[in-house]
Amino acid sequence: MTENPEPEHHRLVVAGSGIAGLTAAIYAARSNNEPLVLEGREPGGQLTLTTDVANYPGFPEGIGGPELVNDMQAQAERFGAEIRHGVIEHVDDSDRPFEIELADGTRLTADAVIAASGASARTLGIPGEDELMGYGVSTCATCDGAFFRDEEMIVVGGGDAAMEEATFLTKFASKVYVIHRREAFRAEDYWIDRLEEHVEAGDIEVVRNAELTEIRGSPDGGIEGASLVRHPEGHPTERLDDSETERFEMDVGAVFLAIGHTPNTDYLEDTGVEMDDAGYLDTRGGAGGGQTRTGVPGIFGAGDVVDYHYQQAVTAGGMGCKAAIDADDYLETLDEEPATDAEAALAESDD
Amino acid sequence: MTENPEPEHHRLVVAGSGIAGLTAAIYAARSNNEPLVLEGREPGGQLTLTTDVANYPGFPEGIGGPELVNDMQAQAERFGAEIRHGVIEHVDDSDRPFEIELADGTRLTADAVIAASGASARTLGIPGEDELMGYGVSTCATCDGAFFRDEEMIVVGGGDAAMEEATFLTKFASKVYVIHRREAFRAEDYWIDRLEEHVEAGDIEVVRNAELTEIRGSPDGGIEGASLVRHPEGHPTERLDDSETERFEMDVGAVFLAIGHTPNTDYLEDTGVEMDDAGYLDTRGGAGGGQTRTGVPGIFGAGDVVDYHYQQAVTAGGMGCKAAIDADDYLETLDEEPATDAEAALAESDD
Repeated sequence: MTENPEPEHHRLVVAGSGIAGLTAAIYAARSNNEPLVLEGREPGGQLTLTTDVANYPGFPEGIGGPELVNDMQAQAERFGAEIRHGVIEHVDDSDRPFEIELADGTRLTADAVIAASGASARTLGIPGEDELMGYGVSTCATCDGAFFRDEEMIVVGGGDAAMEEATFLTKFASKVYVIHRREAFRAEDYWIDRLEEHVEAGDIEVVRNAELTEIRGSPDGGIEGASLVRHPEGHPTERLDDSETERFEMDVGAVFLAIGHTPNTDYLEDTGVEMDDAGYLDTRGGAGGGQTRTGVPGIFGAGDVVDYHYQQAVTAGGMGCKAAIDADDYLETLDEEPATDAEAALAESDD
Repeated sequence: MTENPEPEHHRLVVAGSGIAGLTAAIYAARSNNEPLVLEGREPGGQLTLTTDVANYPGFPEGIGGPELVNDMQAQAERFGAEIRHGVIEHVDDSDRPFEIELADGTRLTADAVIAASGASARTLGIPGEDELMGYGVSTCATCDGAFFRDEEMIVVGGGDAAMEEATFLTKFASKVYVIHRREAFRAEDYWIDRLEEHVEAGDIEVVRNAELTEIRGSPDGGIEGASLVRHPEGHPTERLDDSETERFEMDVGAVFLAIGHTPNTDYLEDTGVEMDDAGYLDTRGGAGGGQTRTGVPGIFGAGDVVDYHYQQAVTAGGMGCKAAIDADDYLETLDEEPATDAEAALAESDD
């Protein structure tokens, strides 16, 4: 590979094209910061996996996830944002401008970076799971549910996503089993009520205090069955030796995982950006401006890379907006004081 | 007035019907918390004063402010929120449930309160301003611009709102003067560019480092003129005795104020909710859940009552969503542990 001595320079690079990234792009474009949005591994982000978004404010009848994402993309482009395929592999913050390397080897430089690269579905780490991913094991009911018509299905999880996926899968499944490792669900009441309706109708059954330990089958033949454990006090895999722990088998055709997400922040690991053990970015927060600042001036965080709790479209949008405004403040400071920093001055001359 | 011994009880009262309040209502209704939204003095909030909302994510062609607010209202009602006229005068947090008194004397009780009562337009505090408010002086170009066709108009301010109002008023005015007390605008570049186009076209003129000191006229005859001061270093009213301070008169037909807002939080003054000198609520912020908690368990803050910096529709929506989720967590704790608190148990029995 020949080294390109002059990597393409951008004033602002937005990593990720979900709600946070696209909202940042809308605001950044309107502030003349000419954002380059790199789509990441999952263009459009998590919301593209949702058929019907009922709680994004402004759509009384709901809106399809992909439709909402497309609309935001058009809106960002209308104001001048550029959206491009690309996955950031590495950010170098040892110098300014930042150096960015993409998975395909492309190198870019940027005066500021908004990390809005979201989170990806978590897996269980049990035997059979990796091997059968895409062959009966899935993290997306919307994407894969229809492939398993009239079969029995498992949904693993106890949050909104698990309830929503289970409800959705009743369209296809002969029966849906919701497997939850605790007694109580943490889903919102709306979803628990929807689930209860299906339980009463007999097309969903809830198995509480239970966990999967193995998924059996082959890519050719699909899933043959799953092994589970149950303990009356929950978290059975932590009590395998307990006499009350019960082992059982289920004969299902598909397993859908809805057990949360891991933030996509590996590419920032060598920078000064601070993150918690799970990889969520530490941003300044607080009141007033600069809430999305990380510990590295010029790198900002928004959406599911930061938020491990609320994780809603409108909260991601709110953070994306804040990140664009914070980045604009930062970039204006660079513009005003180029003489105080030789590299900033050099970066300026590239504009 | 006869004392009503049994004020109407609500699980959750949302103060304010702008983007923050309505988003909170959408989420709270979906969580079965049966929110009662009290509209406040300005139903629909600040956004109803905006003709074209271009930067709310999801509407590539923009959407009218009142239309967006109406849609969110319909969405909240669809999930069971009740929206009612009413202005909160006072909240008593000395007991549980909270006691709420409205401006018309109605008394309510609530297990939880979301303060999303927004902010109201700030005024200059100069002679003539109060007397002529509504007779030539206005805080809303969208509402009042068309009343002053073919007259010269002043817009006071240097932020997005001032730029937007000035641009909008060119439709009606023979000339618009933007009066700003400093040299630099703090508006986003998008608006500064729009302003510049109008300056080049000759229908807007910018007067920097200048402030109004008096507005002359009468309710019958409208505005007759305005007195101003200017100083090359800005903030001229702080330098009235300086030899470089220049006094001048302008003969205009209308004065539009776009100089920021004051949060509507008076009704919380006797509670333990902490606020800054300007009246903005202090919320917990930080990472994880509970970001919208105030110092009083059960009272949450969202939107322009908290945010004095970003103040965008999508950021207000994000906070409203968080407040509803935080309130739901709080209310579930009340439900689970009624025995630990006799008053909570009493409140429960009202449900």
